[in-house]
Amino acid sequence: MAINGLNEFEIIEKIKRWLGSQDMTIPIGDDAAAFELEPNLLSLFTSDSLIENVHFKLDSIKPFDLGYKSLVINISDIAAMGGVPKFATVTLGLPKKTNLLFLKSFYKGLKKAADQYLVSIAGGDLASAKEMAINISLIGQVEKDKMLNRSKAKIGEKILVTSTLGASALGLKIALEPKLKTKHDAYLQKKHFSPVAKVREARLAAKLGAKVAIDVSDGLISDCLRIAEESKVGFKIYAEKVPVDDIVLKESKKLNLDALDMALSGGEDYELVFTSPETIAEKITKNFDQKGWQISVIGEIIPKGIEILDKDGKQISWRKGYEHKFN
Amino acid sequence: MAINGLNEFEIIEKIKRWLGSQDMTIPIGDDAAAFELEPNLLSLFTSDSLIENVHFKLDSIKPFDLGYKSLVINISDIAAMGGVPKFATVTLGLPKKTNLLFLKSFYKGLKKAADQYLVSIAGGDLASAKEMAINISLIGQVEKDKMLNRSKAKIGEKILVTSTLGASALGLKIALEPKLKTKHDAYLQKKHFSPVAKVREARLAAKLGAKVAIDVSDGLISDCLRIAEESKVGFKIYAEKVPVDDIVLKESKKLNLDALDMALSGGEDYELVFTSPETIAEKITKNFDQKGWQISVIGEIIPKGIEILDKDGKQISWRKGYEHKFN
Repeated sequence: MAINGLNEFEIIEKIKRWLGSQDMTIPIGDDAAAFELEPNLLSLFTSDSLIENVHFKLDSIKPFDLGYKSLVINISDIAAMGGVPKFATVTLGLPKKTNLLFLKSFYKGLKKAADQYLVSIAGGDLASAKEMAINISLIGQVEKDKMLNRSKAKIGEKILVTSTLGASALGLKIALEPKLKTKHDAYLQKKHFSPVAKVREARLAAKLGAKVAIDVSDGLISDCLRIAEESKVGFKIYAEKVPVDDIVLKESKKLNLDALDMALSGGEDYELVFTSPETIAEKITKNFDQKGWQISVIGEIIPKGIEILDKDGKQISWRKGYEHKFN
Repeated sequence: MAINGLNEFEIIEKIKRWLGSQDMTIPIGDDAAAFELEPNLLSLFTSDSLIENVHFKLDSIKPFDLGYKSLVINISDIAAMGGVPKFATVTLGLPKKTNLLFLKSFYKGLKKAADQYLVSIAGGDLASAKEMAINISLIGQVEKDKMLNRSKAKIGEKILVTSTLGASALGLKIALEPKLKTKHDAYLQKKHFSPVAKVREARLAAKLGAKVAIDVSDGLISDCLRIAEESKVGFKIYAEKVPVDDIVLKESKKLNLDALDMALSGGEDYELVFTSPETIAEKITKNFDQKGWQISVIGEIIPKGIEILDKDGKQISWRKGYEHKFN
């Protein structure tokens, strides 16, 4: 059943059912949602758009994953501030031919992410559109002294990154090029279509004294560059220390792809990059180890410029990663 | 100059300049914006999309007005909750051919509304899209005991509406049909393209004891129906008491249009409808009069059904007003 024929309110009634009860004073259906935030905390506010044929293709992502990922990438932005996600609004532009089952799966995926990360869906809006457009806004909160940002990186600080990189980029490649096949397609595609937002990791790093973080969305180098620009510094990365995903290392050889390039510039890993003084970096490493969470020191903050060095200390060629161009 | 050729960050740098300084702990340019909300208040959260050729046509609205109105209609939702607007995110989907001057005017209009209503622009996102899509999310705040909502209307309560109705609908008609012309085109179009959000009016009504409000976006009848549905009641409107705009009354005769229909079902007036017991309705009327703010008692809450009555008490025909259909 396509949604044409239904009006906005009929669809919203269905969405309310799919989402179930939400923890709010005034839920979906009024002029605005109302809720209480913890006093004495800073509020965080982020907003992201996903547009059909720009950020996703409907023939390569499942509707459930699209709903799940749309919320998780916003949660990842709150994580990168050291915060806890709280309330989201979801606004959709929908082509008239959109299937109601598609929409149901989308909201089921969204709800799975909301339940996992304890986020309440606080409302939104629906409108018809030529191409599908998803807009999610998310409110989170963070203790003032635990906030992580991009502008406080200091010369000499270590650069750390959580878990491994590159699997999301290879997962996307495999999804878009049906000729590419590996034994690990399911693992790689899950990394791309069903990412994890590192909320607990950011909270722990902030507790241990980290002041700076960003999530790897456009690519490790691009996102480090963002820190460098905001902090008015440069950075150096030791390529051999970059934690390239094991399966990416193995499969990229067979497929004749550059695993390091995917880890440095592929993007959409949603891992976190921290910078911090060496003593704090050591504390973070020790505490992450105890929890079984992988973390790697991959470089350091320098006065200016970008250095990506191989194991002999030679500059290697690199590309910036994803940049949204209007051409 | 079209925006193609520029990347997202170059455009965001320009937007930051157009918007000027914003009152925030962490401004545009980090993973999320951070700010302090007043403790002990409820937070309000609303989100609205405007899509090209669905909600607006680029050849009939000026970019400045589009920016202004996009924010004001969200502020109107916060007003309808009795709240004060605080922080907004603005996310745009932009066709590649979009002119940079268009974008500048859009943000100048947005900034005018932000300055007037003391809203800070807390960030957002840009992406390319086939048709222009504007998404604004807005956070506001309200004292717990001053919150207005749609679900508390009680049988016997009076229905009140601020100012006058119908001018926005006629203004839109004139903009879309070049053959229609009046001596008051500027006034009428301003009512449509540059609406006012009734924040102070809602605050005063709430202070005087009103518990229920909605803003007239889809049309007076449609929006009263929203209250009726959420409150599980019916309503009665006396057509002769509906404050049809004087100029609409005059000009609609010449143009052979139905002024009452525009007032009842035209929509986008962004006036506020309140319901409240008679004693409070009298207090609201008296206090509004003292401030020179027009307010009219137009009907009352009844157990069920919709009655729109002419001066002889006969049911008159009416239509529901704007409904977003996906067909």
